[in-house]
Amino acid sequence: MELSNIINIGVVGYGYWGPNLVRNFMRAANSKVTMVCDPEEKQRHRAVESYPGLKTTGRSEELFSATDVDAVAIATPVASHFPLAKAALQAGKHVFVEKPMAANVAQCEELIELADSKNLILHVDHTFVYTSAVTKIKEEIDSGAIGDLLYYDSTRVNLGLFQHDVNVLWDLAVHDLSILGAISDKEPRAVSATGISHVPGQPENTAFLTVFYDAPLIAHINVNWLAPVKLRRTLIGGSKKMIVFDDLSPSESVKIYDKGVETTESEEDIYLLKVSYRTGDMHSPKVELTEALLTEANHFIHCIKKGSPSMTDGRAGLKVVKILEASERSLQLRGGLIEL
Amino acid sequence: MELSNIINIGVVGYGYWGPNLVRNFMRAANSKVTMVCDPEEKQRHRAVESYPGLKTTGRSEELFSATDVDAVAIATPVASHFPLAKAALQAGKHVFVEKPMAANVAQCEELIELADSKNLILHVDHTFVYTSAVTKIKEEIDSGAIGDLLYYDSTRVNLGLFQHDVNVLWDLAVHDLSILGAISDKEPRAVSATGISHVPGQPENTAFLTVFYDAPLIAHINVNWLAPVKLRRTLIGGSKKMIVFDDLSPSESVKIYDKGVETTESEEDIYLLKVSYRTGDMHSPKVELTEALLTEANHFIHCIKKGSPSMTDGRAGLKVVKILEASERSLQLRGGLIEL
Amino acid sequence: MELSNIINIGVVGYGYWGPNLVRNFMRAANSKVTMVCDPEEKQRHRAVESYPGLKTTGRSEELFSATDVDAVAIATPVASHFPLAKAALQAGKHVFVEKPMAANVAQCEELIELADSKNLILHVDHTFVYTSAVTKIKEEIDSGAIGDLLYYDSTRVNLGLFQHDVNVLWDLAVHDLSILGAISDKEPRAVSATGISHVPGQPENTAFLTVFYDAPLIAHINVNWLAPVKLRRTLIGGSKKMIVFDDLSPSESVKIYDKGVETTESEEDIYLLKVSYRTGDMHSPKVELTEALLTEANHFIHCIKKGSPSMTDGRAGLKVVKILEASERSLQLRGGLIEL
Amino acid sequence: MELSNIINIGVVGYGYWGPNLVRNFMRAANSKVTMVCDPEEKQRHRAVESYPGLKTTGRSEELFSATDVDAVAIATPVASHFPLAKAALQAGKHVFVEKPMAANVAQCEELIELADSKNLILHVDHTFVYTSAVTKIKEEIDSGAIGDLLYYDSTRVNLGLFQHDVNVLWDLAVHDLSILGAISDKEPRAVSATGISHVPGQPENTAFLTVFYDAPLIAHINVNWLAPVKLRRTLIGGSKKMIVFDDLSPSESVKIYDKGVETTESEEDIYLLKVSYRTGDMHSPKVELTEALLTEANHFIHCIKKGSPSMTDGRAGLKVVKILEASERSLQLRGGLIEL
Repeated sequence: MELSNIINIGVVGYGYWGPNLVRNFMRAANSKVTMVCDPEEKQRHRAVESYPGLKTTGRSEELFSATDVDAVAIATPVASHFPLAKAALQAGKHVFVEKPMAANVAQCEELIELADSKNLILHVDHTFVYTSAVTKIKEEIDSGAIGDLLYYDSTRVNLGLFQHDVNVLWDLAVHDLSILGAISDKEPRAVSATGISHVPGQPENTAFLTVFYDAPLIAHINVNWLAPVKLRRTLIGGSKKMIVFDDLSPSESVKIYDKGVETTESEEDIYLLKVSYRTGDMHSPKVELTEALLTEANHFIHCIKKGSPSMTDGRAGLKVVKILEASERSLQLRGGLIEL
Repeated sequence: MELSNIINIGVVGYGYWGPNLVRNFMRAANSKVTMVCDPEEKQRHRAVESYPGLKTTGRSEELFSATDVDAVAIATPVASHFPLAKAALQAGKHVFVEKPMAANVAQCEELIELADSKNLILHVDHTFVYTSAVTKIKEEIDSGAIGDLLYYDSTRVNLGLFQHDVNVLWDLAVHDLSILGAISDKEPRAVSATGISHVPGQPENTAFLTVFYDAPLIAHINVNWLAPVKLRRTLIGGSKKMIVFDDLSPSESVKIYDKGVETTESEEDIYLLKVSYRTGDMHSPKVELTEALLTEANHFIHCIKKGSPSMTDGRAGLKVVKILEASERSLQLRGGLIEL
Repeated sequence: MELSNIINIGVVGYGYWGPNLVRNFMRAANSKVTMVCDPEEKQRHRAVESYPGLKTTGRSEELFSATDVDAVAIATPVASHFPLAKAALQAGKHVFVEKPMAANVAQCEELIELADSKNLILHVDHTFVYTSAVTKIKEEIDSGAIGDLLYYDSTRVNLGLFQHDVNVLWDLAVHDLSILGAISDKEPRAVSATGISHVPGQPENTAFLTVFYDAPLIAHINVNWLAPVKLRRTLIGGSKKMIVFDDLSPSESVKIYDKGVETTESEEDIYLLKVSYRTGDMHSPKVELTEALLTEANHFIHCIKKGSPSMTDGRAGLKVVKILEASERSLQLRGGLIEL
Repeated sequence: MELSNIINIGVVGYGYWGPNLVRNFMRAANSKVTMVCDPEEKQRHRAVESYPGLKTTGRSEELFSATDVDAVAIATPVASHFPLAKAALQAGKHVFVEKPMAANVAQCEELIELADSKNLILHVDHTFVYTSAVTKIKEEIDSGAIGDLLYYDSTRVNLGLFQHDVNVLWDLAVHDLSILGAISDKEPRAVSATGISHVPGQPENTAFLTVFYDAPLIAHINVNWLAPVKLRRTLIGGSKKMIVFDDLSPSESVKIYDKGVETTESEEDIYLLKVSYRTGDMHSPKVELTEALLTEANHFIHCIKKGSPSMTDGRAGLKVVKILEASERSLQLRGGLIEL
């Protein structure tokens, strides 16, 4: 495919998230939104009001076949990610799809294969990975300063909108799973999930997920739509240092503690281990207040132009969906282990 | 047994917790510590220095057979709770034993039966239950103001002393399980626990426990000896109101939120449920700064004098140990469900 | 003046604050913005882009003489408030002017007189007074629940933009002075102000202002453009209860403490006073997240239609400027008392 | 004076603070408390109970003339500091006196002169100066890392005991003035103080003190016995970095921010200054949890043995009292400037 200097973006879905995609692909370098698709007349009207030159359509086929659309950004409910992304890829368009990537593992695998075969960029919108805070955390871990990852323990709760199509893990834990995928290249091995629905006939609104990795890493995610206060706090334990990431503390969201334990073989007895404690300074790196989605849009455009894979490509999306799918089965077993 | 007006207490174990027991049973009404038993000469010396008149011994048999000991308080490692409490009961002494009550369910059951048969008070030191904060929370729940309990979700982590004989659940989750026993009379039905040991050959230092009750209640407890910051926070969701209990916020440790969701049958379709949200004021009741252990000592003395069962009697202790024992089996299964 | 059902608003100044005025007068009931005046072509263009039908001009005279402008909202630098407001009033327009109302007391008095003589509404944009938090605080005080006001003590600091035309009191303390005017009808009697400029030749960037009222009320305001952290906290002491207003804590910005001291005449000696302490519960009323400026715009429109004075009219604006003007003289005297 | 290896301490006053002095001079190296003086029989009894070998007396003359007392620690009400310290020095004893050093400047000067003439150590108990946190802050400032001090702004409020003999500045601001004396060797030049008494006939319970130094330093201290919450926070602005010292945040009490403003001469116009902002990382050094009073006791003993002046000697004490004395006069003038 010949690409002009500017990548033309078509956005499918102009509800809650779509306008953010349009705004940022308008601001990103070498990128421009040319068309928006939404079934609702009202939403299409809203889009044109904000961006007078924009073309709109109610039919996604029209967007996929447009010659002035090089890449498609999809911001629709989960169930429609697969058919829309598939059609876009088949039409030769690069794809930027909301998380979670698709409704199940099989769909993810089919999309990956399709994108590979057509040599198209398939990018999953794991927005958190592109925040300054997570970027800073990833840098610290990659530099070796934190040591081996020992645990990732996240609490992500608030009085949140109850969703009817997916449970709270698909809605909230997906953020942590995308962060985990970015900061560690370890493979998840198994999951155990527990939870409850407090509204009969509805998906779980409170859930607790453990993801087992090869030792010494374990991950745990606590999500809840029914909490009286909003908490967004992640503890990341390393063998050298430990991190507290509090997304609600804008000026000091990342704190790195020079704390840990050390084990030494006791002199008296080779079989006895001694644990000693180390506590030191705390350091909170400056985190820029740039909008993650703009960084991400620029990355996507860059990948298209260079033909290089996205940092959050289909494989990253699949990794997340694989855990979510397994966690649903574990939920049915009330914590029973599901190997991945 | 004839009891003089003053209950004479013998304390077994004068290490970390024993001095607190002596101090409070000295302050409690109608109570006096007459003897302390500790195998170490140094500790016995320490006790006498602080309380010149006190008798001491290195042999627990001597304390159990003393005629001026009416009740025995046991503050020793978990493994010795059972033999010591058993010997004390057999000697006709009332018993006040540290938590967890004993090392397994069978031991707890034997102690309960023994105390019942001898008509003696068997009290487990679930100290948290006697704090002003938990007392206030219990009052709110018992009054009906909170509604049905929906979840209990506790985080109890810090850079804590690694223990070698028990894992982090026996050390820290025991507090939450004792609180749960006090604020709800529901029976736990099953558990799922996951965790990890980061020091080879040692018990789990990081663990996550879900306790299933009859709907709509679920409990979850996150404990960790390897966290960079100290957190002691419990969210308690009720159908009417919700509570945040932060034990590290001395002046506002209990906050009660008038928040929740309500479900109504949709008018259009009887099968569709609508969820609506209610957010209102927050109220933080004053919590007295009295020492819980003094309240508890007074309660124990009162039970002895009245012959009434303790609020945290052997059955309360058993309930906690039952969950801990099951959680160990679930940990082996990496989250596999263990019915109680 | 005959007013049509809809009040037509002309906005002068489309820099930082002007767009907020336009947006809210567009949303307010019975109100519409018809014209925007800004000397810069770029800003006028920005206004038309957002509101296609809007008329614009670079000359304020044109706006003041427009027949489809009933009221003028002024969002320009302080120095121009007086000439613009005066011209608007002379042209028979109601006026909504940014705080501080004008550059000195004489200007304020002239505007008040002019508005009175022409029977026009003169409203000063003391936005904070229209926030849900301050409204709630005012309700509590007006109800008598707080008792007599004893002190108002505010800290309003951050690493803020250094201004070149006014010092930090005119920039930040103005918020507290407007709140004080709203929650208490006491007259300020005198001021003492201290401060420093850390940039040679520039106005004070750090300042401390005490405002004396009749006993038992005193007010103190600490403002700083050179602080490493952002603080927005006000303590309000009452004879019955006390309030902490933390504008950076969105969900619990207002906390009302049932705390205080009571003095009683000692029985032994009528000349000795005893002070006793009362500490009780804390209550945090729900504060709505409505935009204060919309509430204020609606109030302004209502005042015009009813001919009733604004809650933050010229007299309220004058009260604030009187204190600011006196504080500048006190600053020169390094704290010397200036009577009002 | 010949000193044995161990310095024998006599403590005058065994009320609130005296027991802390005894405990720490018992623990300090090369130091021992030999005698305690208190007019009340009950307090003397309390002292002997805790320290069986201790001699006690109700008459200070007896303590001052005792041959086994090398140095005297005075923990009595402010009014008695001068006569007691004077008598002790005249008897040839080194002196450790509570802050504030004395009731007025003249008394301080007389004590300094007396100690100098007799070559005795005169130490003022500015405890805060010996805390790990202030020591760390002082190190950072002395190293040049913070740059020139621009401001010291402290808030020290709570619902505190109303005192009848001194106002809230003598009770609380004294801490900040002692810290200021330790971290900066600049001379205070003038003060302005405002405040109020809410209890008729009693000293001010709420007060605000500005201390002027040579540019660019200014200090401000906000103290209040009538606040609903306890705050202990100090902002220290430097030309290179800024510090927040929060004494109520035990694990992160000192935070050092790489933030500030820089002024550069504008290129266009040499007379115009440009201000640019620098924001960077935050660093929180580990602060040891050692008891300040033990550090201080060791320092006092060291000074006696070496004949070197104390870090908080009579001159440091005088500097604080000079400001407090002037602040009382300024309070009468409601902020009027008092030159020092």
